[in-house]
Amino acid sequence: MDNLNVAILGCGTVGGGVARILLDMQDELTTRAGKHIRLVKIVELSPEISAKRFNIPLDLFCGKGSELSKEESNNYIREIIQSDEIDLIVETIGGSNDFVEQLAIDICKSGKHLITANKALLAERGDKIFGAAKESGSFIGYEAAVCGAIPVIKTIKESFTGDRIRTISGIMNGTSNYILSMMHNERMEFKDALKLAQENGYAESDPTLDINGYDAGHKLVILIRLAFGVNLPMYKIPIQGIENIQKEDIEFAEEIGAKIKLICFAHKIDGKIYATVCPMMVKNSNFLAEVNGATNAVKFINEYSGKHILVGAGAGSSETASSIVADIVFGAKHQGKLESEINSNEIEFTDAKHYQLPYIITFETGDIPGITGLVTTSIGHQNINIDTVSHNRHKRNCATFFIATMPCTLQQVEDAIQEIRKSNPEILLSIPKIIPILN
Amino acid sequence: MDNLNVAILGCGTVGGGVARILLDMQDELTTRAGKHIRLVKIVELSPEISAKRFNIPLDLFCGKGSELSKEESNNYIREIIQSDEIDLIVETIGGSNDFVEQLAIDICKSGKHLITANKALLAERGDKIFGAAKESGSFIGYEAAVCGAIPVIKTIKESFTGDRIRTISGIMNGTSNYILSMMHNERMEFKDALKLAQENGYAESDPTLDINGYDAGHKLVILIRLAFGVNLPMYKIPIQGIENIQKEDIEFAEEIGAKIKLICFAHKIDGKIYATVCPMMVKNSNFLAEVNGATNAVKFINEYSGKHILVGAGAGSSETASSIVADIVFGAKHQGKLESEINSNEIEFTDAKHYQLPYIITFETGDIPGITGLVTTSIGHQNINIDTVSHNRHKRNCATFFIATMPCTLQQVEDAIQEIRKSNPEILLSIPKIIPILN
Repeated sequence: MDNLNVAILGCGTVGGGVARILLDMQDELTTRAGKHIRLVKIVELSPEISAKRFNIPLDLFCGKGSELSKEESNNYIREIIQSDEIDLIVETIGGSNDFVEQLAIDICKSGKHLITANKALLAERGDKIFGAAKESGSFIGYEAAVCGAIPVIKTIKESFTGDRIRTISGIMNGTSNYILSMMHNERMEFKDALKLAQENGYAESDPTLDINGYDAGHKLVILIRLAFGVNLPMYKIPIQGIENIQKEDIEFAEEIGAKIKLICFAHKIDGKIYATVCPMMVKNSNFLAEVNGATNAVKFINEYSGKHILVGAGAGSSETASSIVADIVFGAKHQGKLESEINSNEIEFTDAKHYQLPYIITFETGDIPGITGLVTTSIGHQNINIDTVSHNRHKRNCATFFIATMPCTLQQVEDAIQEIRKSNPEILLSIPKIIPILN
Repeated sequence: MDNLNVAILGCGTVGGGVARILLDMQDELTTRAGKHIRLVKIVELSPEISAKRFNIPLDLFCGKGSELSKEESNNYIREIIQSDEIDLIVETIGGSNDFVEQLAIDICKSGKHLITANKALLAERGDKIFGAAKESGSFIGYEAAVCGAIPVIKTIKESFTGDRIRTISGIMNGTSNYILSMMHNERMEFKDALKLAQENGYAESDPTLDINGYDAGHKLVILIRLAFGVNLPMYKIPIQGIENIQKEDIEFAEEIGAKIKLICFAHKIDGKIYATVCPMMVKNSNFLAEVNGATNAVKFINEYSGKHILVGAGAGSSETASSIVADIVFGAKHQGKLESEINSNEIEFTDAKHYQLPYIITFETGDIPGITGLVTTSIGHQNINIDTVSHNRHKRNCATFFIATMPCTLQQVEDAIQEIRKSNPEILLSIPKIIPILN
């Protein structure tokens, strides 16, 4: 039986988990892969900590377990890429910079398989890396880059091949979902929920990328590339985080039978793709509304097979590591056959201005007679059908409007708001908040 | 580019759907498979009906579209199996009998790939068929055999390879789930819900296999073979249907925050496997409780990656066909590499008598003073901790008990009931119903 020799670069939370599973499951992996999967080398700056945390023999580490300088580490990495002994490299260093990009390209060019959990790298610089892999015939496994343990990549690549994906909607960031769940279930304010998330290990000390939607955006870019065969750069996707969600929004969501979730959304319609990452009011009849805490979930609507939902752990050491090991086995089993990631670049993108969704519009106005008529008439002028209107007067002398529309474009909504503003420049006491509804 | 030539045997609901997708998606399938996937032959007794229903050119049918006798059909099938032109055969004839078994074996022996949705055949006679495939190196695709559109087979085979599956629990029969959903949501009696299911096309005129749990049992046998690498014959699995679920059971389920679902359950613990198909009280905190109507769902608990849930359409023409086409692409792409389905036959099975679950026990007793004490004392004697007791007196002079236990074995429950019965042979006015709770 052949060997498949594996090296791990970076032995932290994820890389260490991979090493642990490779050592624990040696016999089963051999049976499943039809090859001896052997962990032969690990490059890590601080091997002792890592070896202790994951119970890994020190002699697997380059340098026999002594601390490495950056330079030494780079030299070992270079040796591994050039070594004929290594067949597959797990990159769990992380980061999206020139160094890691070049590293990934060099691995592919060497003809070795590359397995990575690096979503930022693949989302921002995937083009060149997949290009290098295509040329050399290397396999890139990146199941762990999107939604941790959920096998969403292989589901698209191997299971939805007899179908056409129409819509992707998903909860792909555990931190923001944890915060929003706390705001719903415990009626917490955003900042308190964030603090709790940090205390409980669900948010990093700098939670920016999780909160502002960019981490979720990276994952959406990767899924769009795979599902629709196109390269959609991040900057073309309207991305909004959850920082501005308030208690009142949560309460109104509950009132209309919905939960606010940070949703990654992509829809291919009439040959065009609409994509966004933003908080949405997810109706309780939609499974995604029931996904609480740090759990991730992805929903697909396909042409032939209809609705699919995949739910699982979006992060975690052994959870993410398990996805990486599955990629190693896949690479071994199927000779890492690479399909073209990009089928076509000719698909157009449509923006929110022209894509129809039902919306919730909330804003404060002066509490003056006739205001409801004025607001609803302006909305009607833009051919928007109103589903429900609600307003309350909790604070001062102002009315807070919550208007649920039938599907319309963002352009129509913005024009309606413009008209309200024009009728009396002082009528709007807050910047209107526009949140799509997901049925 | 190579061709992969496909023949379809049996062009009804599923086979016709496959033909339709193969014709509709020709270009995309070629890109994805790296081969021209060509539908070249269909064998069907009544080609005209099929051609019209699925818009298939008549000249694809053997016999140029004329009705076939059984004998003619068999001759064409024989020709196809012997033909060097055909690479892959889709068997959508159905049935688990000697003829279809021999057909499947002959296809494998010929070295062609076999794709099938035939769960009964694979569950009851899979041994020999997988054996034949192993010998000849054929690939057997059977994604469509378990939960229609849900890619549960490939998820186990390709995505959970870096992990160990511990527990499988699933809603794998759409008919019974539709009926139970109606009983919950509309407070219908079983027989009325069944009638409605038949009227709406969710139940066949003879719904026996769907209602009595055997259809679900077939799927569980297939999943156990794949997940745990063992052959568990159907007769070793305790299987119970939903025929005896009454309105009162549904009401009690709601009372304790649960839904009654027909659950396929398998758990590998201490090297042994416990498996059953039966109605369970699924707590609302479990996703499976939210799966309504004809939808299917499978939940896994894995050692490294934790909980996973897959939800999707369990049946339907294009839904099931889409899974078959994905198998065709998979066979084409990966040269249909076959992994051994059976890793080990050395695993023992444990039975309900020795496996611990929390239970709901319901029965009627005479409405006599001291009865609650007698019942609960008997249960306590068997070392069963009671979670809640409830009894009501809706009918006649009898008390209906609903007792929720903490985890215990079925043996303990049966011994407790025996003790109650012994204390006074006339005390039990109904046969006790014992329903496990799924948290």
